[in-house]
Amino acid sequence: MSVLKAALVQHAFTADLNANVEKSLAAIRQAAQAGARLVVLSELHTSPYFCQVEDPGLCALAESIPGPLTERFAAAARDNKVVLVGSFFERRAPGLYHNTAVVFEADGTLAGRYRKMHIPDDPAYYEKFYFTPGDLGFHAISTSVGKLGILVCWDQWYPEAARLMALDGAQVLIYPTAIGWDPGDPEAEKQRQLEAWVTIQRSHAVANGLPVLSVNRVGFEPSPAGKGGIQFWGHSFAAGAQGEILARGSHERDEIIPVDLNLARIEEVRRIWPFLRDRRIDAYGDLVKRYRND
Amino acid sequence: MSVLKAALVQHAFTADLNANVEKSLAAIRQAAQAGARLVVLSELHTSPYFCQVEDPGLCALAESIPGPLTERFAAAARDNKVVLVGSFFERRAPGLYHNTAVVFEADGTLAGRYRKMHIPDDPAYYEKFYFTPGDLGFHAISTSVGKLGILVCWDQWYPEAARLMALDGAQVLIYPTAIGWDPGDPEAEKQRQLEAWVTIQRSHAVANGLPVLSVNRVGFEPSPAGKGGIQFWGHSFAAGAQGEILARGSHERDEIIPVDLNLARIEEVRRIWPFLRDRRIDAYGDLVKRYRND
Repeated sequence: MSVLKAALVQHAFTADLNANVEKSLAAIRQAAQAGARLVVLSELHTSPYFCQVEDPGLCALAESIPGPLTERFAAAARDNKVVLVGSFFERRAPGLYHNTAVVFEADGTLAGRYRKMHIPDDPAYYEKFYFTPGDLGFHAISTSVGKLGILVCWDQWYPEAARLMALDGAQVLIYPTAIGWDPGDPEAEKQRQLEAWVTIQRSHAVANGLPVLSVNRVGFEPSPAGKGGIQFWGHSFAAGAQGEILARGSHERDEIIPVDLNLARIEEVRRIWPFLRDRRIDAYGDLVKRYRND
Repeated sequence: MSVLKAALVQHAFTADLNANVEKSLAAIRQAAQAGARLVVLSELHTSPYFCQVEDPGLCALAESIPGPLTERFAAAARDNKVVLVGSFFERRAPGLYHNTAVVFEADGTLAGRYRKMHIPDDPAYYEKFYFTPGDLGFHAISTSVGKLGILVCWDQWYPEAARLMALDGAQVLIYPTAIGWDPGDPEAEKQRQLEAWVTIQRSHAVANGLPVLSVNRVGFEPSPAGKGGIQFWGHSFAAGAQGEILARGSHERDEIIPVDLNLARIEEVRRIWPFLRDRRIDAYGDLVKRYRND
């Protein structure tokens, strides 16, 4: 059975944390009833995107993994017999937090976790304040539906991360995401940003000959700082092993986006486009340098 | 002066080698008269794409660099006061050949050469028969119009190559190319291939925050083997530092495509998208492995 039925859950979130969880649990149930065996949620889906400001008090949102919060999602995976990708603000120790994606097996066990390796820090995305960069590296997670290369949001701009997951045997790249527009930006800039975001992720499918799932949130979230805010742009999508768009969501609506992934196409595409055959690993050594000229 | 006026020369070629050269020289003149200071030709632009078959006799097409053939292009660069990127079948020694891009300075001197590092070998693209993989590595070439990251065709599928050029200080990535459709492929496959080719190159602009120029040939070239042949798909294009399309050619016509590159945008874009800031060089070591699981 090489066709994997997946579902991308694109949601808006509010300050009512329990309502966010209930909304996700309902979507998981609905996706499973529609036949999904892999369900992917967006980044930090239990709260508003709190990194718009630097506030030590917001670290109270962080939870242990496993813990009571992730147990609710583990139970949803088990009850609905789906492999589930969630994303949490992980409290590893007092004062030590990560942005962590978690994969639950269809029996509710924790298949693995990925701690976001590339951490952004830009106006309205002050993630370096909250999250210690991941220390687990880039490793695909084995599940009953295949080997999953889980990466998170800012990671999506780094071809190195996608490549390492492919070299680790990943059969699909999965990007839980929270990205949106600055409402003050001109329309042309907004379009360039959205197109770049789609393009770079489709390119990971192309370069590595495997499908990509990217799940973003929707909705406007005002900034606690009082002005600005983020218009999350949705557009969750699935691309096939040649980068072709298989499914895509709207910019503004809550949606469950189903997609069938033909995992047998990975090898078919890699036979006609044998990029992995020809990598010049003898000449790639400087990729571990910050810059070359100094 | 941060705006660089460039021109992409998209041509069809025939078995009349001298006519091919004369056509390129005329285009260089025309582009310079229109204001171009950088002119880019497509891959192996002095002959038909001879790699459709494996024929030792075709190695007679190879020429020394510098040599009488490249001298004609050096003179064109000098006479027209343009920096010129050409692409040649290099004869380095008897039985030792490369697919080599050459940069001529606007005074006709040889600014540098790049020997194609990733060599394809697919039906109708039997390049491994002709070309020894490059041994000069990935190094940007300094010129009077900026530092040029020259890569060739198959290299365009490798994010590693683009990244190394960016880390070497390249201000623009340049891909002389010869790629086309198998006339026997269905239309949907042709479109996937073209889109993938555009997507992966735009992604190099996005990932590295710099412009990309890609120059392909046009025209149908029958296979000397008697059936098949390649319909070169043109679509030469320029992308800006966010991957946005700045200019693009048709699929079938000889064209000189002008484009203005604002090199100051490199730093502007990298300030809002500081991807180079956050690379996890501590975790990229396995990029020099062929595969990870064995």
